[in-house]
Amino acid sequence: MIREAILRLLGEVGYGALTMDAVAAEAGVGKATIYRRWRTKQDLVVDTIAVMNQSLATPVDTGSLEGDVQAMVHRMVDVINGPVGTAIRSLLPTMQHQPALFEAFRTGPLAAWRDSYARMWAQAEARGELTSGGEHALLAETTTALLVQRWLLTGEPVTHEYADDVLEAVVLPMVRTQRP
Amino acid sequence: MIREAILRLLGEVGYGALTMDAVAAEAGVGKATIYRRWRTKQDLVVDTIAVMNQSLATPVDTGSLEGDVQAMVHRMVDVINGPVGTAIRSLLPTMQHQPALFEAFRTGPLAAWRDSYARMWAQAEARGELTSGGEHALLAETTTALLVQRWLLTGEPVTHEYADDVLEAVVLPMVRTQRP
Repeated sequence: MIREAILRLLGEVGYGALTMDAVAAEAGVGKATIYRRWRTKQDLVVDTIAVMNQSLATPVDTGSLEGDVQAMVHRMVDVINGPVGTAIRSLLPTMQHQPALFEAFRTGPLAAWRDSYARMWAQAEARGELTSGGEHALLAETTTALLVQRWLLTGEPVTHEYADDVLEAVVLPMVRTQRP
Repeated sequence: MIREAILRLLGEVGYGALTMDAVAAEAGVGKATIYRRWRTKQDLVVDTIAVMNQSLATPVDTGSLEGDVQAMVHRMVDVINGPVGTAIRSLLPTMQHQPALFEAFRTGPLAAWRDSYARMWAQAEARGELTSGGEHALLAETTTALLVQRWLLTGEPVTHEYADDVLEAVVLPMVRTQRP
């Protein structure tokens, strides 16, 4: 898969050192195949970022709000430790200087992530587990913030065990304060 | 100041594009002055990272745990929005590939930040505001995690108003659960 080759290369060498030739070699296809699909390196990366959201956009529905939140947090651990997480971390500094890349990130993975939360809150409101029409933005940010801090700032491992500690000590107590 | 010139340049062009010549020009000194102090670009940046911790290492003591936590969080807002925050954000991807830079970050700013928290918890334990000998690592991570997530991942503004929202909805309720 060409997109998997792009993700691997982004994680390994970053945007600056990525070349269309390297993508072709890594994917095991001819250069013409790459250039037929994408005119420039930026096109290719924008398009790759836009489809990174698939694992984030799949709906979560365990039947309870606490179960849904736990599932979302553990899914985030898998994203962080997988090729998408490595590629995003490697792209973030470039995004600051290239609006087209940041826009692809904002309207792709970030929007998909927010949509998943919106759906989760709506389900919980329908079940009567969450104050209807409440403001849950800070709760959503809290569920992932501690994982993101280790992933992007301190470099400490983001394990499922750590996610369970964060859920128990920080996230689930906050969820419980938002019951009707 | 040479170090201020280095921070500005790191924020603007990043580590890859930083040159000793540019540092000399930005600081308004001769190249010889730069090379007398630092043999290589890496030496120069390692040394700059090591002294980034000054604003983080200053002790906080407002007389109460909640006041101290609030002061630390608002200080973090200033760091994020200042030249040190921009330089760190710009250096993070390079740190993943250059162990000497990450080590300077780990033993400099990160260690200074952890020391400030350790002192804050010790003060609170002495005042009887916090369970003695408790494990406050997750609490410390929570105080800054939401700010870091906006700073490094989503690009949303990290304002003092946002810090107040985070304190009120997330951090201070968690502090209160750790009272003896």
